[in-house]
Amino acid sequence: MTTARPGSAVLRPDVLGRRRRADRARQVAEVIRRQIDRGDFPQGHLPDERELGAEFGMSRNTIREALELLRGEGLIERVPGLGTRVSTEKYAHPLDHLRGLAETMRPYGGITNEVRTAGPIRPPRSVADRLRLPAGSPVIYLERLRRLDGLPLSVDLTYLVPEIGEQLIAHDLRNRDVFGLIEQICGQPLGTAEVTLEAVNADAHSAAMLGLPLGGAMLVAERFTRLADGSPVDLEFLRFRGDRMTMNTVLHRPAREDRR
Amino acid sequence: MTTARPGSAVLRPDVLGRRRRADRARQVAEVIRRQIDRGDFPQGHLPDERELGAEFGMSRNTIREALELLRGEGLIERVPGLGTRVSTEKYAHPLDHLRGLAETMRPYGGITNEVRTAGPIRPPRSVADRLRLPAGSPVIYLERLRRLDGLPLSVDLTYLVPEIGEQLIAHDLRNRDVFGLIEQICGQPLGTAEVTLEAVNADAHSAAMLGLPLGGAMLVAERFTRLADGSPVDLEFLRFRGDRMTMNTVLHRPAREDRR
Repeated sequence: MTTARPGSAVLRPDVLGRRRRADRARQVAEVIRRQIDRGDFPQGHLPDERELGAEFGMSRNTIREALELLRGEGLIERVPGLGTRVSTEKYAHPLDHLRGLAETMRPYGGITNEVRTAGPIRPPRSVADRLRLPAGSPVIYLERLRRLDGLPLSVDLTYLVPEIGEQLIAHDLRNRDVFGLIEQICGQPLGTAEVTLEAVNADAHSAAMLGLPLGGAMLVAERFTRLADGSPVDLEFLRFRGDRMTMNTVLHRPAREDRR
Repeated sequence: MTTARPGSAVLRPDVLGRRRRADRARQVAEVIRRQIDRGDFPQGHLPDERELGAEFGMSRNTIREALELLRGEGLIERVPGLGTRVSTEKYAHPLDHLRGLAETMRPYGGITNEVRTAGPIRPPRSVADRLRLPAGSPVIYLERLRRLDGLPLSVDLTYLVPEIGEQLIAHDLRNRDVFGLIEQICGQPLGTAEVTLEAVNADAHSAAMLGLPLGGAMLVAERFTRLADGSPVDLEFLRFRGDRMTMNTVLHRPAREDRR
């Protein structure tokens, strides 16, 4: 490990000045994106280029390039004469506890589910194995387009163990989370879910359903849920519009001996 | 709540048959993507279209369309005569504890950091406020392109409180995580980090750095880290290649009274 020349980089003030404008623009854009997420701009109006330039210590050309990056992500609109405005509200989905989408989004608005498909299918082995079902057992497959206050938010593909799924799809699925229905049907609470998150470009069909441009970034999740007694009940594949959702959590540093 | 006609959907076997091929292809692709992530295919060789068709109960045309979706995501290669192979290994980044990238990726390979910029800057107010620094205080800004076994994985923009950052950038940053260095310099462990995840399309500059196609999906994270005593130390903006990384966590169902 080298500890030579402490503070030497601090004495080279030209280091940052020599950077490419694209690097500086991205540096600015990353900060502003999170300010947008956090609702830092009153009424969604961003300061003008001159003010932003002073705030970030950057040229107006750099600020303009940063705003262009955010416009390209679909986060802001630039209206000549009126300035720059936030175009889409982005919702924070906490990853701290297992909750359904309607439960999670209640502070923001109402979730409605368009049921595109609901019925029994013979699942591929990888799905049957995870749900601990014997080969040949059917599962109940459910496909929903989920909207928040009428605007598409996600497409959810759901595989349910048959004895619960069969009862579940007879219920009103339009306004209720699957999670609450499972608990009602089983008479026991859910336990845990394993969640995997990925970033994936939208294909033409997903883009059309979600109202995204072709190739628009989606936050894709697999969520594998068990009942409190540990039995698998629900395997879901979720595609969220990347421009409408963030996932948030708090991590704790493990004790030194647990770090590997 | 409607509970009429229990099981009625189960009695309509034609419901799923009438779906569009694009829906069926996406249903297949979501399952196979996760099988790829989990390393389910020996030597990364996928079964042929006929076998996959039998496994999923879908036509070969549907299977072909599903594989085309995954090829479009950069996950598989289709070599005429040789079949379908996984093209990029995807790494699972656990979100259960606060760990640096090199600590996390140790089972997969070695992380090297290309330091693109390191030095003091005057931060925008939103950054200074979160690091609890007075207006006018400098921060240490660090920009790193991070590679796993030589292949780009992420670009990290890091803002450090000055008293720690000044010492930190005098160290060897090429092969070490910032987290371990902070703990070494402060003589106390890190405490917690607030993490926000988003899916964002790569602009031309990010794409070039990360080796992604233009617009390729990136998993973008903000990570705001405090020392064990609660004082803010490190605010980071991370862009991961979407095709090389998943984020994983386990969620627990809250008690009923805590659900809102």
